[in-house]
Amino acid sequence: MNFGMVLKNLGILLICEAFIMVPSLFVSIINKGYDIRAFIITIVILLIVGFLAASVKPKNKNIYARDGFAIVAIGWILISFFGSLPFVFSGVTSSFIDGFFEASSGFTTTGASILTEIEGLPKGILFWRSFTHWAGGMGVLVMTLALLPSVGKGSLQIMKAESPGPTPGKIVPRLGHTAKILYIIYFGITIIQVVLLVLAGMPLYDSLVHTFGTVGTGGFSIKNLSIGAYNNVYIEIIITIFMLACGVNFSLYYQALKGNVKAIFKDEEFRLYMGIVATSIILITINIYGNVFKSLGQALRHSSFQVASVITTTGYATTDFNQWPSFSKIILILLMFVGGSAGSTGGGIKNIRILLLFKAMKRELLKIIHPRAVYTVKFGNKSIEEETLTEILSFFFMYIFIFIIALLIISLEGKDMLTSFTSVAATLGNIGPGLGMVGPMGNFSQFSDLSKMVLSLCMIIGRLEIYPMLLLIFPTFWKKVNV
Amino acid sequence: MNFGMVLKNLGILLICEAFIMVPSLFVSIINKGYDIRAFIITIVILLIVGFLAASVKPKNKNIYARDGFAIVAIGWILISFFGSLPFVFSGVTSSFIDGFFEASSGFTTTGASILTEIEGLPKGILFWRSFTHWAGGMGVLVMTLALLPSVGKGSLQIMKAESPGPTPGKIVPRLGHTAKILYIIYFGITIIQVVLLVLAGMPLYDSLVHTFGTVGTGGFSIKNLSIGAYNNVYIEIIITIFMLACGVNFSLYYQALKGNVKAIFKDEEFRLYMGIVATSIILITINIYGNVFKSLGQALRHSSFQVASVITTTGYATTDFNQWPSFSKIILILLMFVGGSAGSTGGGIKNIRILLLFKAMKRELLKIIHPRAVYTVKFGNKSIEEETLTEILSFFFMYIFIFIIALLIISLEGKDMLTSFTSVAATLGNIGPGLGMVGPMGNFSQFSDLSKMVLSLCMIIGRLEIYPMLLLIFPTFWKKVNV
Repeated sequence: MNFGMVLKNLGILLICEAFIMVPSLFVSIINKGYDIRAFIITIVILLIVGFLAASVKPKNKNIYARDGFAIVAIGWILISFFGSLPFVFSGVTSSFIDGFFEASSGFTTTGASILTEIEGLPKGILFWRSFTHWAGGMGVLVMTLALLPSVGKGSLQIMKAESPGPTPGKIVPRLGHTAKILYIIYFGITIIQVVLLVLAGMPLYDSLVHTFGTVGTGGFSIKNLSIGAYNNVYIEIIITIFMLACGVNFSLYYQALKGNVKAIFKDEEFRLYMGIVATSIILITINIYGNVFKSLGQALRHSSFQVASVITTTGYATTDFNQWPSFSKIILILLMFVGGSAGSTGGGIKNIRILLLFKAMKRELLKIIHPRAVYTVKFGNKSIEEETLTEILSFFFMYIFIFIIALLIISLEGKDMLTSFTSVAATLGNIGPGLGMVGPMGNFSQFSDLSKMVLSLCMIIGRLEIYPMLLLIFPTFWKKVNV
Repeated sequence: MNFGMVLKNLGILLICEAFIMVPSLFVSIINKGYDIRAFIITIVILLIVGFLAASVKPKNKNIYARDGFAIVAIGWILISFFGSLPFVFSGVTSSFIDGFFEASSGFTTTGASILTEIEGLPKGILFWRSFTHWAGGMGVLVMTLALLPSVGKGSLQIMKAESPGPTPGKIVPRLGHTAKILYIIYFGITIIQVVLLVLAGMPLYDSLVHTFGTVGTGGFSIKNLSIGAYNNVYIEIIITIFMLACGVNFSLYYQALKGNVKAIFKDEEFRLYMGIVATSIILITINIYGNVFKSLGQALRHSSFQVASVITTTGYATTDFNQWPSFSKIILILLMFVGGSAGSTGGGIKNIRILLLFKAMKRELLKIIHPRAVYTVKFGNKSIEEETLTEILSFFFMYIFIFIIALLIISLEGKDMLTSFTSVAATLGNIGPGLGMVGPMGNFSQFSDLSKMVLSLCMIIGRLEIYPMLLLIFPTFWKKVNV
């Protein structure tokens, strides 16, 4: 571990966090909220700690794979820690653990909340809460790469660690350039959605906040009833489409912008993703039509929104899907595990992994039928290396394993099984609401401090796709070696 | 596919089934039950169909991997089909589907029942119901191998298909010999348990029936309250120990009989298995002590029995664990997935696979820390081949996938989530009772015919470790090729 470089990068990250807190401070100043002081104090703390850490001058300027993972894992814990301070200092959350829960829920684009009465909170705080979605969606470290003029040689390691998955991090040869392109696309989508929401009749402030929650696939709302509060079908359609769009691999948009629109529809992961979305919408619509909603149109409207919200791991709601029949609820729970596409802002296991898991499974069966034949698993025209396949298969087990450990700890509270099960699924998959007591009309405030900490960690573990966080517990990970 | 040989072997299997029905016929004759006629008719049908099929004279006498899988998959469906006839003909079950459920539950050593009032049923039927556990525990096809004087050259393929798993099927060079040794050990354990139960005060008939259910890790009882009906701590201790013993790889007993007792304790799978058992017992005891049971002794007694019952996938109960707190219930649900050891009579994913899944997971993490190092996964002193590892990792996904598909179909009934979830887990893992409506004091009678068929298939799929049954749906599997 190159401790010097790790520390330096963490410092830079905190300075960046101070900067991204400035818009929220402005909102709070404009609205003359009681949260102004909380933002100012936090920003000052961030700048002091950040500059102190960033001023380290390490001899060895290389960042190896391990260092990248360390920066990302510790970095996400730190930004959640400091990101919670405005909540704590303003008194919006009653304890630090609540603040940490809310901040990590924001940055990891989960959208699970411990706040019970959202509508009375100061606008600056609510803006910050949603802005963390926007910042976290694309990756906070990718953001620092996009913002910084010179990018060190180890940056690829950081980017890889923050958005691992089976797709490579680079879409153009220069890494800083890749990060910038991704953020430009992201910014473009954001602006279009804000404009559309305003045109549909949503106030500007609400549009901004909900757009952050949509494009980051976060899900924090400023209404207790989430998007259902507006009861506006245009707003729902816009948000449905933008949620789905942000569950797609962003590098496909880059290719489309370069003129290769076909690339999107040729992409196997995109097809699987859209296939799952369409199938789920149809099945749920059939299941809820007649018993939950009297009209087919209403059934389709709400099933589409909820499916898009859950598979993209956003977590907005237009209705209380906790009241839906078991079959629909199980589909939604499964979607929590599937999640978005690799290279999107969505969480979960990711469609590309699900696709390759199926291909690996099919191969095992074919091997039995034709024991002497050699089968390679392909994605598009590319053969997938055996090592990558083993990694994905192991990842699936790891995901389930982490899920189980967290579930065991949460279940110590003695809450009903559905609540315990989905509270973990919804945080590990970065969705937000689950079912039962943590359903779209419930929230996470009734959990104990231990459970809240575990669920906060689940959010970060899920967002970083397990590896970086799990490595922290290996003693050899911390060894200072010159590789 | 070598259709001739497949048909011939299926015929032999049915003849064997006729023979293993004879003891039940005797019990029914001794007790002058109304089920005598049902047994006689079934035996006649089995002999006619069996001899017709066995009289086929195929030109090609080779059995290839595929044929082995076909014999096993179709064979298990057939023995469940014909095994259900005594239930149907005697009128004990009201429909064929109920009978098929009960018979497949018996042979697969699941122990899930659709019968609501067991204690009034004829003794012959109850004997048959439990005897299917005994026959199915070690594998019905392995039994035919053990019984038949001459064993064809393709028998290894059959044995492999019936008990796949990561351990090889042979413990001595000659296969028929291996099957005989396994059945001798099995027989020995059976006799010891019967004697002990009789000494503990259980009537002979009850002892026989419950021993079949124990050593086969089945779980059918002749009491509505299962083992709890006897309320005898000695009986519980005996059954606990024998359940645990039958969740161990039988080849370890063979080694112990040859003098190598240490082999058992050196075996990594055995250690994991005992570790999981001990940990689960301790955690559940702490969890239920005080709130469910007032005395520590009672808490330990019931937690030990239930843990042994569920991890070995037996399914006997001494108390209604459906009333236990969430934490304990979740542990029991997890144990349903873990199951017994490879080469035991228990079902589930199996401990050896769980062990190797953890090792694969650890390796992925180490690879990140030391990207240039080469890690091989070991079991004992043996390196596990990459292919085997990929297979196990894929198996895990397959297991979860089958679970999900079945869960979706079952959930169409609209039963509560816990009932739906555990009814699938308990049948796929061959446990028997689940939680909720299918808890130890409930049963499966309230499901629709569709659900009963799906759950019956889950039992067979689980017992055969997925592959044989899944292969049936591949068109290329049925192609007639001369490999």
